[in-house]
Amino acid sequence: MTRIPFNTMQEVIAEAFGRAGMSAQDAQTCARIHTESSCDGVYSHGLNRVARFVDYVGRGWVDTGAKPEPVKSLAALEVWDGNRGPGILNALAATDRAMELAAQNGIGMVAMRNTTHWMRGGAYGWHAADRGQVAICWTNTESCMPAWGAKEPRLGNNPFVMAVPRAGGHIVLDMAMSQYAYGKLQVTRLKGEKLPFPGGYDKDGNLTDIPGPIEESMRILPMGYWKGSGFAILLDTLAAVLSEGLATDQIDRIGEGSCTGCSQIFIAMDPAQLGGAAFTDRVGDGVAGYVTGSPPAEGAREVLYPGQIEIRMRKDQIENGIVVDDGVWAEVLALAGRTA
Amino acid sequence: MTRIPFNTMQEVIAEAFGRAGMSAQDAQTCARIHTESSCDGVYSHGLNRVARFVDYVGRGWVDTGAKPEPVKSLAALEVWDGNRGPGILNALAATDRAMELAAQNGIGMVAMRNTTHWMRGGAYGWHAADRGQVAICWTNTESCMPAWGAKEPRLGNNPFVMAVPRAGGHIVLDMAMSQYAYGKLQVTRLKGEKLPFPGGYDKDGNLTDIPGPIEESMRILPMGYWKGSGFAILLDTLAAVLSEGLATDQIDRIGEGSCTGCSQIFIAMDPAQLGGAAFTDRVGDGVAGYVTGSPPAEGAREVLYPGQIEIRMRKDQIENGIVVDDGVWAEVLALAGRTA
Repeated sequence: MTRIPFNTMQEVIAEAFGRAGMSAQDAQTCARIHTESSCDGVYSHGLNRVARFVDYVGRGWVDTGAKPEPVKSLAALEVWDGNRGPGILNALAATDRAMELAAQNGIGMVAMRNTTHWMRGGAYGWHAADRGQVAICWTNTESCMPAWGAKEPRLGNNPFVMAVPRAGGHIVLDMAMSQYAYGKLQVTRLKGEKLPFPGGYDKDGNLTDIPGPIEESMRILPMGYWKGSGFAILLDTLAAVLSEGLATDQIDRIGEGSCTGCSQIFIAMDPAQLGGAAFTDRVGDGVAGYVTGSPPAEGAREVLYPGQIEIRMRKDQIENGIVVDDGVWAEVLALAGRTA
Repeated sequence: MTRIPFNTMQEVIAEAFGRAGMSAQDAQTCARIHTESSCDGVYSHGLNRVARFVDYVGRGWVDTGAKPEPVKSLAALEVWDGNRGPGILNALAATDRAMELAAQNGIGMVAMRNTTHWMRGGAYGWHAADRGQVAICWTNTESCMPAWGAKEPRLGNNPFVMAVPRAGGHIVLDMAMSQYAYGKLQVTRLKGEKLPFPGGYDKDGNLTDIPGPIEESMRILPMGYWKGSGFAILLDTLAAVLSEGLATDQIDRIGEGSCTGCSQIFIAMDPAQLGGAAFTDRVGDGVAGYVTGSPPAEGAREVLYPGQIEIRMRKDQIENGIVVDDGVWAEVLALAGRTA
């Protein structure tokens, strides 16, 4: 484990993306989002995901030169085609446009079809909240989780994001529909540990907290059993209907890695035109204060609101450098044409 | 257990509501929603909830004469005040207005503050889908569930609804943020059974599937542990911010039963102006077919999409009458001034 300064990490990732064919400005933007993700502790979609993105570009699954474009406009709702450009750039463009539509109409939405992996979904929630807006975003994905009562993965884990701006720290939820990510299963298995709670079924249909047999069966558990399963189904259907794009059953037929060809929704609302920033802060402070002031349960030290861990990690890692796995860092340095 | 014809049930409930002071038309509308809920198998918020509503009216917690009114308009987003009128009437007015705004702008939203219990949240999803629109609705509530890692209930269970129209049967999700409703705990306890999965903590902080100790501690489990907790926090914050209304911490101070003074969000999108009804059906058919065609897990007979059970129950109970608990039916007959 080494700690790398924020600016250094961003610079190196940008070089790697530049060598993969992105323009200097696009490479900087994507590198910033990856670096911010690692900085906030979302390592899986930060530095650790750079090599896979570069691989997808090499395979022709992401078109670094493609630009997203509006294909339909209905006053407050626009449909865009992502043209399989870099998911981060498409998602930022969609979030910015949804915020413009919200500034004009109170609420605004961009439904983006035919895009690619947006990396960390929370990035677009934080992006909107930093600009004073409320955001709801989600994406569908290829199948990676069985529906409730089913044996075979036919649902995406369909990450879902909600964000509210707050001077004292935005309140941001970023969750996938599976109880655990496959990355969490892998990390837990490598440590020889069990999951805190059952995370899926083994190949014989036994619910288990041992990660290996779940990775093998691909029978990962939807959060809240039937609830996460149902929520994933609705997120998928809405994403495809509203973007005139593809649902999970159709993304599965593309077979070009994770999320290639997926559909995404970006909804923004403008609280400046509602109660204003001071009112929004009062509501957020009330909710956050009430929750964090709860007496902790046995064994718990404190009660947190969504986004609070990210804010703490960010503060620490901006001051002290971002923790990296040495092997991953060496790999990204090599992609940037540098030697470790 | 007796079976009561749909029309008879609606008529009797309407009489009960009329005697509680509602106009004939309002009583009919509310009675229809309660009857439809029972008919779809959502008994808790159908016939079984009539007496409690009448009680709330008697206490002055619901104003049967109040009408909801718009207080702010931002093109595609309107803020309404529910004036503590009947939650069903307020929610129907909000859904209808959100759909009008969606027809004009692609997407429309009504944020309703100061309203009362909307009964079955799914009602508004089905209502919109019946009219060809996509809907996302949610409400906040008084505290009934601890945040993740906390001992004391400070979160609402904040029901959340998503609906997509489909000629072959709408796809409709209607879920609260707790893994189980208190009603489910009670029913399971009365049968002397265990919950299918752990549903909360006893007073000493042990996770348990025995309902009694959870009812006693009020430490009901959020669905997906930290995920349902975080989702509940965001639904609450957004509902209050966008309606310029109250969040759970403030609703708790009102102390006038369930949901009095709560904040609700109604978002509609118009797929007729996107891919059109045939495209929307194709997407829904694709998703539903993929999911329901999954090989069932060990012990499961079939795999269902959200809304499918309700459609089956509705068909059966419209044909054969709606199953009622005889005691509850007698109570509602008495409220209607009839003898059993």
